Amino acid sequence: MFSVRILAQTGKSTFGRVLFSTCAARNKYNEPLSGHDMVRAGGIASMMRLPVQSDTTGLDACFVGVPLDIGTSNRSGTRYGPRQIRCESALLRKVNSATGASPYDCMQVADIGDVNLNLYNLPKACEDIRRRFSDIVKDGCIPLALGGDHTMSYPILQAIKEKHGAVGLVHIDAHSDTHDLMLGEKIAHGTPFRRAMEEGCLVGNKVIQIGLRGSIYDTGDYDWAREQGFRCIQAHECWHKSLEPLMVEVREMMGNHPVYLSFDIDGLDPCFAPGTGTPEIGGLTSIQGLEIVRGCKGLNVVGGDLVEVSPPYDVQGTTALTGANLLFEMLCILQKVK
Amino acid sequence: MFSVRILAQTGKSTFGRVLFSTCAARNKYNEPLSGHDMVRAGGIASMMRLPVQSDTTGLDACFVGVPLDIGTSNRSGTRYGPRQIRCESALLRKVNSATGASPYDCMQVADIGDVNLNLYNLPKACEDIRRRFSDIVKDGCIPLALGGDHTMSYPILQAIKEKHGAVGLVHIDAHSDTHDLMLGEKIAHGTPFRRAMEEGCLVGNKVIQIGLRGSIYDTGDYDWAREQGFRCIQAHECWHKSLEPLMVEVREMMGNHPVYLSFDIDGLDPCFAPGTGTPEIGGLTSIQGLEIVRGCKGLNVVGGDLVEVSPPYDVQGTTALTGANLLFEMLCILQKVK
Amino acid sequence: MFSVRILAQTGKSTFGRVLFSTCAARNKYNEPLSGHDMVRAGGIASMMRLPVQSDTTGLDACFVGVPLDIGTSNRSGTRYGPRQIRCESALLRKVNSATGASPYDCMQVADIGDVNLNLYNLPKACEDIRRRFSDIVKDGCIPLALGGDHTMSYPILQAIKEKHGAVGLVHIDAHSDTHDLMLGEKIAHGTPFRRAMEEGCLVGNKVIQIGLRGSIYDTGDYDWAREQGFRCIQAHECWHKSLEPLMVEVREMMGNHPVYLSFDIDGLDPCFAPGTGTPEIGGLTSIQGLEIVRGCKGLNVVGGDLVEVSPPYDVQGTTALTGANLLFEMLCILQKVK
Amino acid sequence: MFSVRILAQTGKSTFGRVLFSTCAARNKYNEPLSGHDMVRAGGIASMMRLPVQSDTTGLDACFVGVPLDIGTSNRSGTRYGPRQIRCESALLRKVNSATGASPYDCMQVADIGDVNLNLYNLPKACEDIRRRFSDIVKDGCIPLALGGDHTMSYPILQAIKEKHGAVGLVHIDAHSDTHDLMLGEKIAHGTPFRRAMEEGCLVGNKVIQIGLRGSIYDTGDYDWAREQGFRCIQAHECWHKSLEPLMVEVREMMGNHPVYLSFDIDGLDPCFAPGTGTPEIGGLTSIQGLEIVRGCKGLNVVGGDLVEVSPPYDVQGTTALTGANLLFEMLCILQKVK
Amino acid sequence: MFSVRILAQTGKSTFGRVLFSTCAARNKYNEPLSGHDMVRAGGIASMMRLPVQSDTTGLDACFVGVPLDIGTSNRSGTRYGPRQIRCESALLRKVNSATGASPYDCMQVADIGDVNLNLYNLPKACEDIRRRFSDIVKDGCIPLALGGDHTMSYPILQAIKEKHGAVGLVHIDAHSDTHDLMLGEKIAHGTPFRRAMEEGCLVGNKVIQIGLRGSIYDTGDYDWAREQGFRCIQAHECWHKSLEPLMVEVREMMGNHPVYLSFDIDGLDPCFAPGTGTPEIGGLTSIQGLEIVRGCKGLNVVGGDLVEVSPPYDVQGTTALTGANLLFEMLCILQKVK
Amino acid sequence: MFSVRILAQTGKSTFGRVLFSTCAARNKYNEPLSGHDMVRAGGIASMMRLPVQSDTTGLDACFVGVPLDIGTSNRSGTRYGPRQIRCESALLRKVNSATGASPYDCMQVADIGDVNLNLYNLPKACEDIRRRFSDIVKDGCIPLALGGDHTMSYPILQAIKEKHGAVGLVHIDAHSDTHDLMLGEKIAHGTPFRRAMEEGCLVGNKVIQIGLRGSIYDTGDYDWAREQGFRCIQAHECWHKSLEPLMVEVREMMGNHPVYLSFDIDGLDPCFAPGTGTPEIGGLTSIQGLEIVRGCKGLNVVGGDLVEVSPPYDVQGTTALTGANLLFEMLCILQKVK
Repeated sequence: MFSVRILAQTGKSTFGRVLFSTCAARNKYNEPLSGHDMVRAGGIASMMRLPVQSDTTGLDACFVGVPLDIGTSNRSGTRYGPRQIRCESALLRKVNSATGASPYDCMQVADIGDVNLNLYNLPKACEDIRRRFSDIVKDGCIPLALGGDHTMSYPILQAIKEKHGAVGLVHIDAHSDTHDLMLGEKIAHGTPFRRAMEEGCLVGNKVIQIGLRGSIYDTGDYDWAREQGFRCIQAHECWHKSLEPLMVEVREMMGNHPVYLSFDIDGLDPCFAPGTGTPEIGGLTSIQGLEIVRGCKGLNVVGGDLVEVSPPYDVQGTTALTGANLLFEMLCILQKVK
Repeated sequence: MFSVRILAQTGKSTFGRVLFSTCAARNKYNEPLSGHDMVRAGGIASMMRLPVQSDTTGLDACFVGVPLDIGTSNRSGTRYGPRQIRCESALLRKVNSATGASPYDCMQVADIGDVNLNLYNLPKACEDIRRRFSDIVKDGCIPLALGGDHTMSYPILQAIKEKHGAVGLVHIDAHSDTHDLMLGEKIAHGTPFRRAMEEGCLVGNKVIQIGLRGSIYDTGDYDWAREQGFRCIQAHECWHKSLEPLMVEVREMMGNHPVYLSFDIDGLDPCFAPGTGTPEIGGLTSIQGLEIVRGCKGLNVVGGDLVEVSPPYDVQGTTALTGANLLFEMLCILQKVK
Repeated sequence: MFSVRILAQTGKSTFGRVLFSTCAARNKYNEPLSGHDMVRAGGIASMMRLPVQSDTTGLDACFVGVPLDIGTSNRSGTRYGPRQIRCESALLRKVNSATGASPYDCMQVADIGDVNLNLYNLPKACEDIRRRFSDIVKDGCIPLALGGDHTMSYPILQAIKEKHGAVGLVHIDAHSDTHDLMLGEKIAHGTPFRRAMEEGCLVGNKVIQIGLRGSIYDTGDYDWAREQGFRCIQAHECWHKSLEPLMVEVREMMGNHPVYLSFDIDGLDPCFAPGTGTPEIGGLTSIQGLEIVRGCKGLNVVGGDLVEVSPPYDVQGTTALTGANLLFEMLCILQKVK
Repeated sequence: MFSVRILAQTGKSTFGRVLFSTCAARNKYNEPLSGHDMVRAGGIASMMRLPVQSDTTGLDACFVGVPLDIGTSNRSGTRYGPRQIRCESALLRKVNSATGASPYDCMQVADIGDVNLNLYNLPKACEDIRRRFSDIVKDGCIPLALGGDHTMSYPILQAIKEKHGAVGLVHIDAHSDTHDLMLGEKIAHGTPFRRAMEEGCLVGNKVIQIGLRGSIYDTGDYDWAREQGFRCIQAHECWHKSLEPLMVEVREMMGNHPVYLSFDIDGLDPCFAPGTGTPEIGGLTSIQGLEIVRGCKGLNVVGGDLVEVSPPYDVQGTTALTGANLLFEMLCILQKVK
Repeated sequence: MFSVRILAQTGKSTFGRVLFSTCAARNKYNEPLSGHDMVRAGGIASMMRLPVQSDTTGLDACFVGVPLDIGTSNRSGTRYGPRQIRCESALLRKVNSATGASPYDCMQVADIGDVNLNLYNLPKACEDIRRRFSDIVKDGCIPLALGGDHTMSYPILQAIKEKHGAVGLVHIDAHSDTHDLMLGEKIAHGTPFRRAMEEGCLVGNKVIQIGLRGSIYDTGDYDWAREQGFRCIQAHECWHKSLEPLMVEVREMMGNHPVYLSFDIDGLDPCFAPGTGTPEIGGLTSIQGLEIVRGCKGLNVVGGDLVEVSPPYDVQGTTALTGANLLFEMLCILQKVK
Repeated sequence: MFSVRILAQTGKSTFGRVLFSTCAARNKYNEPLSGHDMVRAGGIASMMRLPVQSDTTGLDACFVGVPLDIGTSNRSGTRYGPRQIRCESALLRKVNSATGASPYDCMQVADIGDVNLNLYNLPKACEDIRRRFSDIVKDGCIPLALGGDHTMSYPILQAIKEKHGAVGLVHIDAHSDTHDLMLGEKIAHGTPFRRAMEEGCLVGNKVIQIGLRGSIYDTGDYDWAREQGFRCIQAHECWHKSLEPLMVEVREMMGNHPVYLSFDIDGLDPCFAPGTGTPEIGGLTSIQGLEIVRGCKGLNVVGGDLVEVSPPYDVQGTTALTGANLLFEMLCILQKVK
């Protein structure tokens, strides 16, 4: 009953192999190690207890961690986001009960580990990230990134641009992250979308930012974004309502253009996501977060990230758990999923 | 003003006395020890600081703990649920401000302690629970059980059946708990309602499950339940709305049939109930939880449980507090309460 | 770029200088130390990293702490509320993104430290508070108080009365706090508004209490308040809706009468404010909390407090963070703010 | 095997029965509910899961809680000390493995609940404590008190004096607690032994204070104590060594005189007892704490307390656990124990 | 500089392969992923970030997890011990600074994941463990097990016996774990060494138990063990001294006989290991723990375990960290290490 | 009795006044705000509640924070070290009970706030630190720095060298921090003393490192240090003994040469200092830490730091408390203190 099903392998490459999957014999795609096959507390903590492989050979989509926190302005700790999201993801099962999506029946997915980055030098870390994501996307694998602080979206978007050109952006966040400088630096977790826009990674009028709120430095803090054509939805515009109608508009706005999905967990209210560095009250509910991601079904999503989970501040584990769920929801809306 | 009202004693034995009730002289029913009579931090932590007695003699309803967690599939710790719910319940007072219910003016209620169960053998533990609940219900006392993992609902329903036959069920939960097997076993916290249904404890078309959600093992995970006639309400059907209309339907569905109320705290969203073993995001609000329990007023409730509070994961105590409140709300809707 | 703007000094005394303000040269008013000028983790933790001064000379409004917890009936710890609110306030910036309010462009504001109070004798502590607030308000400075347990609102209202006569009251709370006695005492955190009303500090029909809920001692617990003309809004009346319509009524009710704003953080649901002494489930959302405070714009607010933040129970820091935000929101609705 | 041994009942009243003792039939004395008879997570959380009774009739010794924290000068929270010590005590068994002491074979012991005290008025609370302890000690029952802040030792010593006259004192603490005033008040947790000495409760040259350390207000802080004849042992005199030789001296010093044992948990190093209000580094080890209590075997101990356990700061529960163990060790050295 | 060194592979077996090692090119043995090669927050959390492989082909020693907690009598949670020990082990480097041992230069070591066990049925779980360990040891691989509750040592010793016959035992623990029954059951975490002795897995006079202490059920609790020839060292015999002299005796006692090393983390004092289920004060220091393991150098150690790490109670992570270190120390004393 | 002693003010400017000192009138030196004058929970949280001033004019010594954590290799969070150390320091009083030192009677001391540093660029942050410390030391003020990660010692030593030339070093740490590179970078928290030595800031044979331990990257990890003449004392050499004899040797070794004192809190065992980034078991006791600092009395200490306190991992606050105490102890051994 507890038989561990190990796959026969057909090739000798060190890449593109199933590492500790016990489930692949069941169908032609990798599957998360099931709680019916192995106690959830057991098994190496990869994302959803998926097989780990070192590159993207054969993959339609991958989970990849970015253990970064030196771009944070308030609390740090997001370097441990990927590890903690993986730990909490052990609870996840393979099918989405609300949408019926069953991504592991349609795509080859694996956990490809973490970006090896320079944690003492932020520009170099960005370059490490960009290079790794260039590799990931070059043959069409869709990366879903486990953050890590939001600085990472900048080099990811650079890599995405190499493959897809300027993309649309669905950006959930309490903050616009379009500052020009932070403490005088061009690169930090409050500047990625300014940099990305400046470098032609984004199509301005295909950018929507949802959940903006809190105190700001200046009354004009969102002006630059709006000047680029970004649609800035403040959190209070979302209060007391479903965001499904908004997502209808988003789907119209994006059409079939390639879209990147960047979900800063602080877009959600601190009651759902206390474990983050710059929490702002009055935020989106996790239900709205689910509506946004599910509402992206039909878009041509070419990549996504879930950022700013900071485990040392996530005392009850709910932030990482929410992050893990939202990443699974992202997987469920990819185009190959029926 | 701080007079401690101690009952007259009839002998000098250290036994045969009311131990820490200070209120029984006030009316003919037990009352919780009031925060006006004793600081809340004081007093032995029984449920609501009620008198404790070892059996159900003379009781209309009772609180009883089930310190069980060996049926859990993810995080354990629910064995300490009863103790922690009792601790947090010290804040509760005797009247319901929203409904006006004043249960201690209408019924004799006590805390009867915990089921003495075998914590190393789940089937034996279930038998211990069944036997104790048979005793509790045989003379008409209504048990409100402090869990403990959800496995316990199975033996409780067995005992309820002995007294009342097959009953209706209002089941709040993120999970259907109708698996056939978990890791190959028939008894675990994901199977109680399958077992109960198989054994004739439930009337299939008088079962409603509210709050189902999250990832599942298979697209057909709810099929069996629906085939039995269960009404399965998924969480996303409840988003952004009051559940009062649903409860109108529930009251119609149940009529005067005996009903059991099983409230898995993970039916609520993790922001309200982080201290549980298998939390799923996008869940019911505690307001909806209150609407459900209050909406059971008028039903012929013959027992209830509040399960899956896991104190080691309830860092801020809010889960146990919520559990304590929901148990008090259950008390408030019993038929003897005016 | 990181130039610390230090004021010219006129002497060589170690006293007589601005201590950690870096902003006063920028405009004619104090400003919070900006995250663009100094890392948020740096700087002495005054409220919003504002300049600290010992009295209210020159101030339009001030933040002042009241490190009190000996009036609490359940969990203590609120004595550390002011310190923790200040720590979390380091994240705040000077402009309100939702309302556009920019209070530091319109008013002189500072942190004036804490009331020096007798922590072993509650009546004396109240007298200490009353005396300090008399000083604060006598020349027109508007105090925004960081609590501290709710007992403090009583002596503050005494001081407010000396200056303004009987005032209106917007009171957000899970509890009416109008008991006559607690454990036989006249002064405790459950009695301040009874005392204040008895002493003529409040205009009965200009008092609104929002968020009342939970279990109560007696079905008549709110009777006294209603007899005084208080409008008592129970939490369940607020469920599933915006409170903006209610605030329209509040503004009509208050007209231009001086109003005091007392925000007990336990008015909010425990998912938003777990770090408090007497949490009650089914409470207001933080969104509703923001609606209430923002809805006070236009009122003649002469003072306010944010009470019952208990840091030892605020494991994830969200309660203090919420408190800090709500205090900033109070600042934003003062009449001098355009 | 899991038979719950319930005492025969003589009537049908819901009162007049032993509530949760399962052991009294075994021998003539009460026993803690054994982990072999009931899972440790089960059973109402009395001290060591002993029977609870409302007075001291028939008792040789008793555990009694004092839920007090309004005498604290730094962190509060000790009001919940008694409840938490009881919770953690569920792990304790009836025999001391190191000394062989088996107190439940020699004495009748029970938990008599908590002192009902006025938590808003420290002098009245002291009077409440004094009155309750007068009752406890008047017929020879030896109280072992679960604190609660150290202020409580003052009224306890007043009650002890009524029965026994001036007593000796073994006082473990980081602080001398012999201030004259704190914030101008005579009664607070830094003054109990000054008050007790002034009122003739103590024999000056039979007082030993062990573990004094940390920063102090004045170089003469210990002068008053030494002038009374107190022996003040600073913590650094205890470093790196066993305290057994010291306890030989203590036994000589005390002879057969009645002795009170007051153990402030902050006498131990914060690594053993972080959950306390005024922790000082460089303190006694828990091993030394055990040596001190065990070294009191042979003394005529007429009462004892374990104070300053503050659960909200005892995140890992080790402080309450240590407190529970030390109270059991005190029980083991009482004169009736063979 | 951040080059990821991936090994070329020579065979196509699914077993015996390096999964996500980046270091094996450096020498002929696996090495932990170095903090110089990859940020510690990165990389899949295997033990010491070693390669993971599914069986023991080619291994001299292995780390293997046993996610078990249904044998616990007090707090549960140890099922997550293996995962948390692995997470904290990311800090470890490959060489022992105190002993100079460099095990990865001498042996082939890997993490082989977790035992797949039945978490709802303790006897079946034991059988699952026994079977897996039989496989592990049959070709000479030395297992170092990450627990998991202490019940697991019983089936591990059964497997060890199959290979090595009756072995010696160095057992560090607060408890003798030689009960006959717990709550009537033969298998639980308080009985493994009784069962193992009864079944001939142990040589009675080559068993030493170090650290026994705390309250016990009966004055004769250690009698059975002593009757078998076990040497029982109580914790108080170890106070204030180095255990190096004791380990000299242990080495004499064991000679070259095969020895199993079972380290219950509760052998250490709760200040070092709060995150465990049955903590007892007055325990061994972590220094003594290191002395014991290091003192086993020279013994013929054929297996070892580190048990009873309970992450939900290990709030500061120090218990898992200590467990990870002790497991590394065990690796360092294996006979193949020079 | 609660009179707040506010200094006479000379003008009506909101600037130019002593902000929250209440004690300066008492003697000619600043004093910490006493717990006898203001409740400890009150008052702005400067170090020991000392006056804050923006530069070092008139100061003999100062406390200064360095909110840095981007040099950390494992857990981050030390950026909040200074703020948390200040919070916990509120418990400290002005006199040392063990040594009798009364530094505030002999020196002018203040808290001068934090270094304003670039948190997104480690080399620039170092330059910010160097510049600020050059200012601090240039007129003879002795800085005691609140860290912050250990990288900071490098630029501080650069500044110290400008004033004093190469200095001796008493370095308490689990790690030698003399790596050449970390992830390829010259500047990180594992390299400061290599850099400082290379730049002539240290006199090699006047450097002592105490507490080295744990796993290391290579058997030669301490070789470079020893080649420079550093004395490397491994932790196991310190086990079970007082370090007073060692400090006699240290005083001989240093003579009257200027000495810098760098105390990495991870030099202490994790049971005393869990809240740090790279904890290693088997470390120094806090008693040994006190012996080391007190043993520096007589040395010509020209500066010191206490680094690596990471509040998000310091759940019980003991690490920051220990840090605050050790900084006070450093103040007590400065040469001006009698």
